[in-house]
Amino acid sequence: MNTPLANDTFLRALRREPTAYTPIWLMRQAGRYLPEYNATRARAGSFLALCKTPELACEVTLQPLERFPLDAAILFSDILTVPDAMGLGLYFAEGEGPRFERPVRDEAAVMRLAAPDPAAELRYVTDAVRTIRAVLAGRVPLIGFSGSPWTLACYMVEGGGSADFRQVKTMLYRRPDLLARILEVNADAVAAYLNAQVEAGAQALMIFDSWGGALADGAYQQFSLAPMRRVLAALARERDEPLLDAAGRIVGTHKVRVPVIVFTKGGGLWLEDIAGIGCDAIGVDWTVNLARARERVGDRCAIQGNLDPMVLMAEPAQVRAEAVKVLDSFGAPRGGAGHVFNLGHGISQFTPPESVAALVEAVHDHSRRQRRNEASASSL
Amino acid sequence: MNTPLANDTFLRALRREPTAYTPIWLMRQAGRYLPEYNATRARAGSFLALCKTPELACEVTLQPLERFPLDAAILFSDILTVPDAMGLGLYFAEGEGPRFERPVRDEAAVMRLAAPDPAAELRYVTDAVRTIRAVLAGRVPLIGFSGSPWTLACYMVEGGGSADFRQVKTMLYRRPDLLARILEVNADAVAAYLNAQVEAGAQALMIFDSWGGALADGAYQQFSLAPMRRVLAALARERDEPLLDAAGRIVGTHKVRVPVIVFTKGGGLWLEDIAGIGCDAIGVDWTVNLARARERVGDRCAIQGNLDPMVLMAEPAQVRAEAVKVLDSFGAPRGGAGHVFNLGHGISQFTPPESVAALVEAVHDHSRRQRRNEASASSL
Repeated sequence: MNTPLANDTFLRALRREPTAYTPIWLMRQAGRYLPEYNATRARAGSFLALCKTPELACEVTLQPLERFPLDAAILFSDILTVPDAMGLGLYFAEGEGPRFERPVRDEAAVMRLAAPDPAAELRYVTDAVRTIRAVLAGRVPLIGFSGSPWTLACYMVEGGGSADFRQVKTMLYRRPDLLARILEVNADAVAAYLNAQVEAGAQALMIFDSWGGALADGAYQQFSLAPMRRVLAALARERDEPLLDAAGRIVGTHKVRVPVIVFTKGGGLWLEDIAGIGCDAIGVDWTVNLARARERVGDRCAIQGNLDPMVLMAEPAQVRAEAVKVLDSFGAPRGGAGHVFNLGHGISQFTPPESVAALVEAVHDHSRRQRRNEASASSL
Repeated sequence: MNTPLANDTFLRALRREPTAYTPIWLMRQAGRYLPEYNATRARAGSFLALCKTPELACEVTLQPLERFPLDAAILFSDILTVPDAMGLGLYFAEGEGPRFERPVRDEAAVMRLAAPDPAAELRYVTDAVRTIRAVLAGRVPLIGFSGSPWTLACYMVEGGGSADFRQVKTMLYRRPDLLARILEVNADAVAAYLNAQVEAGAQALMIFDSWGGALADGAYQQFSLAPMRRVLAALARERDEPLLDAAGRIVGTHKVRVPVIVFTKGGGLWLEDIAGIGCDAIGVDWTVNLARARERVGDRCAIQGNLDPMVLMAEPAQVRAEAVKVLDSFGAPRGGAGHVFNLGHGISQFTPPESVAALVEAVHDHSRRQRRNEASASSL
């Protein structure tokens, strides 16, 4: 915990400070496209066992960093740990997505909901954070995360994934009071969960609003954005980190801001709204033009994104060309802008690992070149 | 074919002419939420048989108009008739979406593709259009439609629906030349198909770009928008309609513009681009704020949309309230604006028909009220 960071490029970009290059990490970077991940998962017996065993969660968190010079690690976990800890009974049916044994469908079920104590039911997550920080030993920062209150509510009410969100939207339009109650409990639960992750060592946070984009304009602001604002307001935004002297020796601690990224998939129309809820960065998917996003968001937030993960199905030369397009569309990050390169969605299990190698290299190389060109242009 | 229209409100709104109220129709208005539709479908034996039997397609097209005072009819058909006519072998597996027996996966399959002759392989569609026009007898206009070249390509390459569009996007990023060839054939096929529908009697056209929103910014413009522009450029945009004298007697024919609606689901970020390809109206989903859409599109196009179909799961009073919100967000259509009320996606099979009744009534009533208020405000 006391090791200073060897590479803080990711945190600097989120704080919109100058960086030598554009940092990159990938959603689901520890995942099924890596043979070593599949081996650890097989050892664990199941995906949930992997999430709930801190040593194994740590092992898979580190795996992509051994292969690729990524600029951040992200806690290996599932976005549904919180409703699972509420007693809804998370399970994964073979070949299907997540399901809950006891979905929240009626008033009685809503009234029974309570925010879990992260120190008890979610202890395995904070244990994993502590273990990962120790093993990372300051190589790169560790990101903690949670699903957004609305996204958790989707799974809790639907009882699993959904194509049309019929159950949760029926509740939204028929009984908005019940949905509001769920979102209140979720917001408090998510805030406590994220604070526990920071206390355990998470150096940045990301809120995955995977299903915010399924909401109508107006409904999004009320049922997804407002609960996220509530979460952000309840977060401890600082943590103690080692303070170094000129020789790199630890001479004490100082308060460091814990930046928070909010990612509403399909939320490209609402960037101005998202920028107003107090997050440090906005995640954007590949439908968003980064130049326009940067104009719209201004210097209020950094931007994270937004390569289509399917680009990684192409040959390395094409992967590089598409990475350059994304970097060029953002442009050189000057004047208080910040860019973190990422995909616009989780990496596909069918991704060839050599595509990821080509991507990371292209992002680092081209973004250094952008800064050099910028510097030589401004020195003319 | 010679009967003048009793209700041309829909066409007037698309042409951005003044209307007494905001016209409404619903995507998939002839569908499984109607018991009479399910009865006809059972008689037909299958969904495809229903599409391919003009009398039955006509029967279900008219069914929603018997129940609700909708302002347009839409040809009952499937968006995949065109690739089916190319010989890919469309079928519907029980409880699943559409599938193709022979997906287009390699260069040889791409090179074999050719635009079908609408007068031969798609004769059942133009026959249905003629039958429906005769039975409609001028009550409301009839909309013809097609899938967009990109949306058809998705199904053709994937072989069916897809969550991640891996096959078609792999082609896009690895072999853009092959995808370009498919899109060229599709654009020509769609144009010929839509022209045949107009010749048979379709009075307006809609292009369903259901999967345009799955594309990255940049890729959308190249692989979905450009082929749609090619379709629009190849469309006969006028048809002969009866010319009436002051007493309502037919005294000849005159040329009438056939308006075209382009609907990219998830395309809210690209409205300005869509407005530039020569369509008369833009369909928008529920994530789009209509006031902002109207600002962005200006007087270049009318706008169609955008109620979340899940609103129809609520009680009639709530349906009415949400319909009013949509109308108020657009505002009174003055100064060359045009609004056609619709859902932002097809109606759900679980919709109670009484919700549709409440919706249509609310849209007609409230939009008349908007115009009255507008008139009395401007006479002050």
